[in-house]
Amino acid sequence: MDCIIEKQNKVLLVSRKNYPFGFSLPGGFVDYGESVEQAVIREVKEETSLDIVEPKLFGVYSDPARDPRSHTVSVVFYAKASGNPKASDDARDLGFFDLDNLPDEIAFDHLKILKDYNEFRKKI
Amino acid sequence: MDCIIEKQNKVLLVSRKNYPFGFSLPGGFVDYGESVEQAVIREVKEETSLDIVEPKLFGVYSDPARDPRSHTVSVVFYAKASGNPKASDDARDLGFFDLDNLPDEIAFDHLKILKDYNEFRKKI
Repeated sequence: MDCIIEKQNKVLLVSRKNYPFGFSLPGGFVDYGESVEQAVIREVKEETSLDIVEPKLFGVYSDPARDPRSHTVSVVFYAKASGNPKASDDARDLGFFDLDNLPDEIAFDHLKILKDYNEFRKKI
Repeated sequence: MDCIIEKQNKVLLVSRKNYPFGFSLPGGFVDYGESVEQAVIREVKEETSLDIVEPKLFGVYSDPARDPRSHTVSVVFYAKASGNPKASDDARDLGFFDLDNLPDEIAFDHLKILKDYNEFRKKI
């Protein structure tokens, strides 16, 4: 699962320590025995130190080619967070990026997710 | 994944051939290499012979206790279908049920999904 965290019209991306490299939304895999909502709260905390509350479902991305390692399904949430993020765990670094000025190298299908989110946020 | 198919204010449920028994939404597991949208179209066809088009995301259900066999995540869609369904594959029988008069024995967390859907459909 992955999480879109927006703050002052920018979204939080992490620079990945592991293959595939590039920037991505904070996220990771659900552990056996936890819900996807619990998993996204845990992964965001691990990678960014931020606490999110009440993540909302944004979409489900399951193109077999979305992850070069293997076929994975991502449940994508969006959430608000307060405080200042700090990179840790799988994140080498992080930052907030303008949705209209994203970094060049974005891992997985997260550029598509971010484009979909950019359209979605104009409607809400 | 599972699919809510509504027709004339009733939803389609199948009577399961395999444990856990009872009625359930048509659905099943995503095969490696297919998207969840492809999977839900395939599973509905296999179990009910119906063709659905453009399934829409309803929710993601991942309570670790939702499936007595193991921890599973279900991406739930809703879709329209035309024609008459016919039970096959994992479905012993099937029928359309009024959301306010559902059968007693419903497998997995599908009663919760159907209650959530009943609330949702009042708003759309």
